[in-house]
Amino acid sequence: MGLVVQKFGGTSVGNVERIKHVASRVIETVKNGDQVVVVVSAMGKSTDELVSLAKDITENPSKREMDMLLSTGEQVTIALLTMALQAQGHEAISLTGWQAGIKTEDCHSNARIQKFENETIGNHLDSGKIVIVAGFQGVTESGEITTLGRGGSDTTAVALAAGLKADRCDIFTDVTGVFTTDPRVVKSARKLSSISYDEMLELANLGAGVLHPRAVEFAKNYQVKLTVRSSMVEEEGTMIEEEVSMEENLVVRGLAFESNVTKISVCGMPNQICGLSNLFTTLATNNINVDIIIQNVIDSENTNISFSILSERLAETVEVLENNREELKFQEILHDTGLAKVSIVGSGMISNPGVAGQMFKALADQGILVKMVSTSEIKVSTVIDQSEMVKAVETLHQEFQLDKVKVSV
Amino acid sequence: MGLVVQKFGGTSVGNVERIKHVASRVIETVKNGDQVVVVVSAMGKSTDELVSLAKDITENPSKREMDMLLSTGEQVTIALLTMALQAQGHEAISLTGWQAGIKTEDCHSNARIQKFENETIGNHLDSGKIVIVAGFQGVTESGEITTLGRGGSDTTAVALAAGLKADRCDIFTDVTGVFTTDPRVVKSARKLSSISYDEMLELANLGAGVLHPRAVEFAKNYQVKLTVRSSMVEEEGTMIEEEVSMEENLVVRGLAFESNVTKISVCGMPNQICGLSNLFTTLATNNINVDIIIQNVIDSENTNISFSILSERLAETVEVLENNREELKFQEILHDTGLAKVSIVGSGMISNPGVAGQMFKALADQGILVKMVSTSEIKVSTVIDQSEMVKAVETLHQEFQLDKVKVSV
Repeated sequence: MGLVVQKFGGTSVGNVERIKHVASRVIETVKNGDQVVVVVSAMGKSTDELVSLAKDITENPSKREMDMLLSTGEQVTIALLTMALQAQGHEAISLTGWQAGIKTEDCHSNARIQKFENETIGNHLDSGKIVIVAGFQGVTESGEITTLGRGGSDTTAVALAAGLKADRCDIFTDVTGVFTTDPRVVKSARKLSSISYDEMLELANLGAGVLHPRAVEFAKNYQVKLTVRSSMVEEEGTMIEEEVSMEENLVVRGLAFESNVTKISVCGMPNQICGLSNLFTTLATNNINVDIIIQNVIDSENTNISFSILSERLAETVEVLENNREELKFQEILHDTGLAKVSIVGSGMISNPGVAGQMFKALADQGILVKMVSTSEIKVSTVIDQSEMVKAVETLHQEFQLDKVKVSV
Repeated sequence: MGLVVQKFGGTSVGNVERIKHVASRVIETVKNGDQVVVVVSAMGKSTDELVSLAKDITENPSKREMDMLLSTGEQVTIALLTMALQAQGHEAISLTGWQAGIKTEDCHSNARIQKFENETIGNHLDSGKIVIVAGFQGVTESGEITTLGRGGSDTTAVALAAGLKADRCDIFTDVTGVFTTDPRVVKSARKLSSISYDEMLELANLGAGVLHPRAVEFAKNYQVKLTVRSSMVEEEGTMIEEEVSMEENLVVRGLAFESNVTKISVCGMPNQICGLSNLFTTLATNNINVDIIIQNVIDSENTNISFSILSERLAETVEVLENNREELKFQEILHDTGLAKVSIVGSGMISNPGVAGQMFKALADQGILVKMVSTSEIKVSTVIDQSEMVKAVETLHQEFQLDKVKVSV
């Protein structure tokens, strides 16, 4: 008998019919002889509805009261799912975040889990119950309700799996697994049977959107075996684990891309020691998220700094910079909008110095101009014209043979 | 500086506009220099919506999971009301039942409050905050979420007022106070400026519907000064207190009535010691609520027992009785449907033995046949034909001069 944590997201529990379907999926696992802890999100659009109620009250609701409000969403789902399991003759019990022993730091709307006290869930499992836990929420030492921020339910599931020493953690979602790239864009995109934590982290951060980076990080730290699979379709998902064994250690495992990128260049800044620091501290203070950063020293006195942002933040970013012109002492701001970011990810890159070159050549062969580059040990990101994004993705998918399964024997 | 507990029901917080209006009412009290604790119910129809979700899952949801589900309703309201108060520049904080220290017995869907730990609310009041508490809910010693059953938010408000030694407890509702009888039926119905706990209890039990009997009982036990008033209209309400002083001690203070009553007669039961007990235990086991009970011994061997129920339970009641015919040994069941109950209530009756006679004579003078009678120290209830209910109520309202204020000097 094993112990499995299963997480179902908002779409999977979007209405009563789907909740009943989730109950059946859970019961299948129980019938396999496993103990099951289920983590659920709020039903489909219910979080949006709660947010809109708050906005009707005030433009600036306090974070504490938003947590109070939003945490009701998962509480509704756990009650309904537990009823559905009981209606099918199974012993089940629902637990809110605070009941389940999920202790977080004292910080609203984006709290981190500090401790998971596993006695309550452990006792219920021992007494033969299926335990249904509200995702996305916890409680501080002083009894304040907190929420975990975006992707919080994924993090809850991984934390419970770690703290209960579960055999695996299944993340049920509306896709059938992690793909080499977005199958809606590239027809030959292929579902991966496994991927390493680090690769998944890069893909998650690059906007692949299947799993929240914090959950992957947590899973990596506690070596929780994660599986991403579909709640709708009966199909093997993608395993996320330390050592990717079943497939040949592909140099490039996946391709991520993102449109609506804008490149901003701050030109002619004095080449001072605190120039970079001043610039990005100013942007961070104004909540502007910067992605790729490139510095180009022009001469001993001046420097150009370029960075990429989401296009929707362009006006705001320029305003922030202009407001701080005196302090930052730049001469000019240039911006290039209508761009896209295309990245290749794979842990095999570490030992393959030629991968970046191979990527640039493939793009150049298609006449695609690379406007920015950023690299990590296991990824290379390029910024190109948005109009060429799909062509670039298709080219690279083929170049690195992502459409072909290579199984090691 | 005083301390006031204010309770706003579901209609008063039915939408965002009304919640903002409630915030203004609360702020008025704060501006008078009082500390305020606010108790709120779930928004308007939200409880019904949650119940209907549960019914879509299963016909028989467990009580524990219903409590888990329904308690989210008030949690939404406390967050929104707190946001509204903060938006108007006031320090406020929301607390769920468990955060507010409302400890109940270990019983779902209809738990009684056992203990109220007032430290948390006390500390927040001391730090100058308006405290917003979720009504209708509490927590057991072992951390289970419970609800208090019908009228639960009234009970929460009274319990907080008692435990915080509040100067008064205002119950804001959709009527302007307690009336001599239903003003929608009797034009000359008059709002009472005060009424005693016992009178209110009889009226509440008789279906006057303004305040839940449990809340009144609680208020009586802890001598909490209650006021019932309108959340919409600025107008003095009705004071509920031990000694009614401002008005002459009226013999009859109010009139309650209820339609859709059915009288059932179980005829020819053997006149055994356990006959009554068997009959009503059987009905109670089947959740059939019986109101007035009359026993008529026919001869030394047989007895007829009559009782009244809500007409909607007729078919079910007859079925239960028929299913137990062998055990109960009756000969025949008769029923008389289309009846109504009309009651007079007043603590002055205790010392006025002629009141019941005066009531019967007034009804007889109008040709109204009384089919059942039941009395307590401070009320007389009669069951009559529903077609004559309004005439009876109008007649009695006039007979006991309820339309006239008698102020003692």
